[in-house]
Amino acid sequence: MRISVIPTAQQAQGINFSGQTAVVIDVLRATTVITTALDNGAHEVIPMKTVEEAQSLYATCDNALRGGERNALKIEGFDLGNSPLEYKKKTVEGKTLILTTTNGTNAIHNVQGADEVVLACFRNAESVACSARNDVTVVCAGTEGRFSLDDGLCAGMLIELLKQQTEVEIDDFGLLLNRFYNESKNNLFGALSGCYHLKRLFALGFYDDIKFCLETNCVQTVPVFQAGRITAK
Amino acid sequence: MRISVIPTAQQAQGINFSGQTAVVIDVLRATTVITTALDNGAHEVIPMKTVEEAQSLYATCDNALRGGERNALKIEGFDLGNSPLEYKKKTVEGKTLILTTTNGTNAIHNVQGADEVVLACFRNAESVACSARNDVTVVCAGTEGRFSLDDGLCAGMLIELLKQQTEVEIDDFGLLLNRFYNESKNNLFGALSGCYHLKRLFALGFYDDIKFCLETNCVQTVPVFQAGRITAK
Repeated sequence: MRISVIPTAQQAQGINFSGQTAVVIDVLRATTVITTALDNGAHEVIPMKTVEEAQSLYATCDNALRGGERNALKIEGFDLGNSPLEYKKKTVEGKTLILTTTNGTNAIHNVQGADEVVLACFRNAESVACSARNDVTVVCAGTEGRFSLDDGLCAGMLIELLKQQTEVEIDDFGLLLNRFYNESKNNLFGALSGCYHLKRLFALGFYDDIKFCLETNCVQTVPVFQAGRITAK
Repeated sequence: MRISVIPTAQQAQGINFSGQTAVVIDVLRATTVITTALDNGAHEVIPMKTVEEAQSLYATCDNALRGGERNALKIEGFDLGNSPLEYKKKTVEGKTLILTTTNGTNAIHNVQGADEVVLACFRNAESVACSARNDVTVVCAGTEGRFSLDDGLCAGMLIELLKQQTEVEIDDFGLLLNRFYNESKNNLFGALSGCYHLKRLFALGFYDDIKFCLETNCVQTVPVFQAGRITAK
């Protein structure tokens, strides 16, 4: 298995993912939110690029909720923000979630032509690794167009899990991230202490979100993006 | 001082470097070649994107040599390849070098609008760090459009040297590379054992080049790119 890692959603544009399993990671917080929502029984998640698109779609849907963020905060008029802690069973079970976030939902849309597009976070990394077929390209969503250390650390963990189950050939960026994970796995929070995105969420008071997003291998749900919709595999 | 790192030459395109010192790194081997040539008395180095441009310019120049590579090997009809060991004093002193390489010379041209564009490698990293003013954006040249670990390790070293002389604010990618360097500084060769570009040069027999390129802080020459020409600062 060949493993490559792309540092940001923007860099995924124009790449041909044919023959690849693409794994999109936005640890803080989109892929953690989506994994949590599906794990708690949401029927599907529809990722939208803009607030306007999300509102238009919502107007045509039954049994839907609007979720997401701009500048890390809940969008005015939406039902839910971008905290995975909001996506509890009692709130999301059986619902269609229409989600728009700054980085993660764009990253999902930027992956074109892959055999399969799956979403990973720390909470489901092991299940994602177990389900991976073909060669794997990991797309780190990034923050504000730049590489984000939290996504990279999760990519490094995913690579470690893939290494444990098959023979792999890893690109230079993947080697760097896998090494980073192996040196940090006993203290993920500490390894991310300088991370711009984490510090920003911390300053906004999202400490419980960060803690939740850094918990590893606690759910088995693997979100799959196909034909505009994300469902549990 | 703010420090950012860009993983590949391609990603430097379209970025506004205004107010920045841009530091271009192509350890294996363009920026090592250029540093070595200027340190050995070359009058100037003119980086060209294509072989055809290099040949056309050469036809109009006195006292010039053509150097560079395609697929890591010397270009047919050129005077020199891309091994820094070829760029000895007796060969290059007083000469204009017209250079075209696959990654490094393109990376230099992709940086637009910076206050200053300097070239770094392991051999001159300390002098580059001492000369840096303003905020710094490090551009790793990469290999075949992808991030290359050798450039990243050198970027991590440069960041460490900058940290020792001033207060810095480092982006996520820079934090990762600085950490990588600090964990690897006693065995740079070992840290790069999985690096695609290094393995490729090794397989082609360029072991002495690699060894030379990984020697640290042995020259004080800082190449500066201005108005199409690279000269010693």
